[in-house]
Amino acid sequence: MRAVDLIRKKRDSGEHSREEIEFLISGYTRGEIPDYQIAAWLMSAWIRGFSRAETTALTQAMLHSGEVLDLSSLPAKKVDKHSTGGVGDKTSLILAPIVAAGGLIVPMLSGRGLGHTGGTLDKLESIPGFNTNLSLKDFRRVLGECGMALIGQTAEIAPADKKIYALRDATSTVENTGLICASIMSKKLAEGLDALVLDVKTGSGAFMKREEDAVQLAELMVDAGQNMGKRMVALITDMNQPLGCAAGHANEIAECIEVLNGRGPADVRELSVELSAWMFYLGEKTKTVEEGRKLAERMISSAEALEKFRQCIGLQGGDERVIDQPDLLPKAVSAVDVASSASGTIMTTNCERFGIALAMLGGGRETKEDRIDHAVGLEFHKRIGERVEKGEPLATIHYNSDAKLAEAKRMVAESFVIDQDSGGQAKPPKPPKPLIRQIIGS
Amino acid sequence: MRAVDLIRKKRDSGEHSREEIEFLISGYTRGEIPDYQIAAWLMSAWIRGFSRAETTALTQAMLHSGEVLDLSSLPAKKVDKHSTGGVGDKTSLILAPIVAAGGLIVPMLSGRGLGHTGGTLDKLESIPGFNTNLSLKDFRRVLGECGMALIGQTAEIAPADKKIYALRDATSTVENTGLICASIMSKKLAEGLDALVLDVKTGSGAFMKREEDAVQLAELMVDAGQNMGKRMVALITDMNQPLGCAAGHANEIAECIEVLNGRGPADVRELSVELSAWMFYLGEKTKTVEEGRKLAERMISSAEALEKFRQCIGLQGGDERVIDQPDLLPKAVSAVDVASSASGTIMTTNCERFGIALAMLGGGRETKEDRIDHAVGLEFHKRIGERVEKGEPLATIHYNSDAKLAEAKRMVAESFVIDQDSGGQAKPPKPPKPLIRQIIGS
Repeated sequence: MRAVDLIRKKRDSGEHSREEIEFLISGYTRGEIPDYQIAAWLMSAWIRGFSRAETTALTQAMLHSGEVLDLSSLPAKKVDKHSTGGVGDKTSLILAPIVAAGGLIVPMLSGRGLGHTGGTLDKLESIPGFNTNLSLKDFRRVLGECGMALIGQTAEIAPADKKIYALRDATSTVENTGLICASIMSKKLAEGLDALVLDVKTGSGAFMKREEDAVQLAELMVDAGQNMGKRMVALITDMNQPLGCAAGHANEIAECIEVLNGRGPADVRELSVELSAWMFYLGEKTKTVEEGRKLAERMISSAEALEKFRQCIGLQGGDERVIDQPDLLPKAVSAVDVASSASGTIMTTNCERFGIALAMLGGGRETKEDRIDHAVGLEFHKRIGERVEKGEPLATIHYNSDAKLAEAKRMVAESFVIDQDSGGQAKPPKPPKPLIRQIIGS
Repeated sequence: MRAVDLIRKKRDSGEHSREEIEFLISGYTRGEIPDYQIAAWLMSAWIRGFSRAETTALTQAMLHSGEVLDLSSLPAKKVDKHSTGGVGDKTSLILAPIVAAGGLIVPMLSGRGLGHTGGTLDKLESIPGFNTNLSLKDFRRVLGECGMALIGQTAEIAPADKKIYALRDATSTVENTGLICASIMSKKLAEGLDALVLDVKTGSGAFMKREEDAVQLAELMVDAGQNMGKRMVALITDMNQPLGCAAGHANEIAECIEVLNGRGPADVRELSVELSAWMFYLGEKTKTVEEGRKLAERMISSAEALEKFRQCIGLQGGDERVIDQPDLLPKAVSAVDVASSASGTIMTTNCERFGIALAMLGGGRETKEDRIDHAVGLEFHKRIGERVEKGEPLATIHYNSDAKLAEAKRMVAESFVIDQDSGGQAKPPKPPKPLIRQIIGS
């Protein structure tokens, strides 16, 4: 087998066998196939596409390029959730405590934010002392003690993905459902899971702007996971506006604690409970999703989930006092309101722009090497479908430096799409689209 | 400007500006853009294609990646011919002496054979002592003294093409008309030409099997050359059978000497005269192509072209006695006839297979590092449209080693496609297609 012939095959719209994909991925991981051949192959695959069988083979090849955790010694089902990312998407930090409190194991390998989306690891690191760099041994220990642990991808996990992702980033071959699926699933399945719940975002703040693209990616991932013997479901959820009222790092942790206290924004709670319910159901903790919902609600109302989060923070070296005193989290020195320039109804938002504005304030990365300011954040006061009066605050910006404040402020203001009143007539508010759009693969 | 954005643009079927192409090619040549980005870009371009404007820009960028010869001190128009390659295609060695004898300058940078096609440099090197590695200074001197000189591509000429060609070879992005055009034209135009005649081969022995593909490539090349102020024409010519009776190296030199002596195969003479005629016309030596034909014929009948060839061989260090004593050329030790297995009419040939059989005998290269046996060769006795009787020789193989002789012999025999007589009835011979199919861009 020669790489040049396999490139030609994909170039000419051929379908690879499992062996051919294994040859390319393992050869590249071992450094036997050069970057430039994989780059040409990735581009041909980006344009020609992968079949479902190819996507599964790619996922498996990338998964087996590294270590797969064996957590069979832990006496419960292992379940996890993966989100394709958005603005204010903080459910991992709510559902992991809920599901661990409910008796399942949540071995969560998470990522960092890049571009306009936030990352779970970055948010956690706003908790003073929280260590996301546990060794796999310590990861296992924390899991054994409290049923949940949250760390970053290690060098042992799916090294092929690490190498290929860097190459995709440099060669404009990122946005391809087969490649995205294999990248996500190879890392998640390395956690040694029994079941995985996917939260595939769609809308102006998601990578998949169009719902049909989100569905296609969801189907591919569900298919790849099921082909590898995992129980899978994907929820297609709305990302046309930020999830909850907070986008940032410290402020999102505070919002999570609110929700675990039975308060906080309704949408964050709804989605966290729904995803937890599916995790309970696929992890065979409950017989139905409805029972899963009830169990999740109970873990909140009994404060068992909150205590689980406190325990995990302590075990991972963080200051667990933040649970009762969120003021211990980093705080920005200044705040400014973003006022509405018109009266009317919020029709939608250019949600991705909120994430970009946040990054401009220091709360995001342009490159992987950038440092993050955990204290800065956006606070949203209005949601889609709500009315706003001219001069009323749409959002509040919490910032430490006013270097790019004016630009960020303008960007936030312009990202609210307002249907203005005409002739003094207020139009009736428009009900927003449901948060959970579709359920794939149940 | 960033390479990653330009890759995305071509991936999404965009058209590059001249500046964008210049950025990619010069950045790659200087080592500022890595192999893997250009590999991804080449694949996107292979699949999405280049416009004519892009092809011209690519040709210019590659041309200006290196030195462009300034031959303005030589007191005549500079003209050259380029062939896309075939089996037995030896016209360069006939038309260069004809055109130089007629008073124009022919500064010929040639290539080596690769795959099934022969290369002008390899053929010349079968002449004892002939040096194809002249410095550009010596190249100029020989040109000044005899009006023609034949050397290989030097490091100064179109270095971008050298680097990109190697990458295309490793990434299955060779067969794209835009890339082929830019590769050929950037090297040829570096010769500092006034006019260029293209011989674009089509048929079973050519890279472009289908005539429409040959026409498309010819149009692109003519267009790119004209956009750069050159007088251009392309002849689409038949390569469904070898040109002439000899394919090899020494035996092709001998056939050239025959033609320059007014003898030799009619097709070689016809095509050499026709190409010379266009060179005379575009080089403004004659007012019409017809006058060019007459001038070419006169250069042969007066033996002025033969003497020009002798002079050039001498100036480039070769043994000029081969002109009168072709026996001084390398000679294979053995010969075997390939007999026809049937009686009938030659319908066509799988011409490329003759080239592969020749390479198997040592007369071609698998890789650029392989050494060539200049003495081995194929001698053809039958042409398309001719009758053959069972047992009659179709060809003779001249060989030095019988390692792969049986396989080469079978390959040669099977490459003649014979319409067999049925019921003892001989079918009427079929007239072959014309040698010169179309003329593009005159």
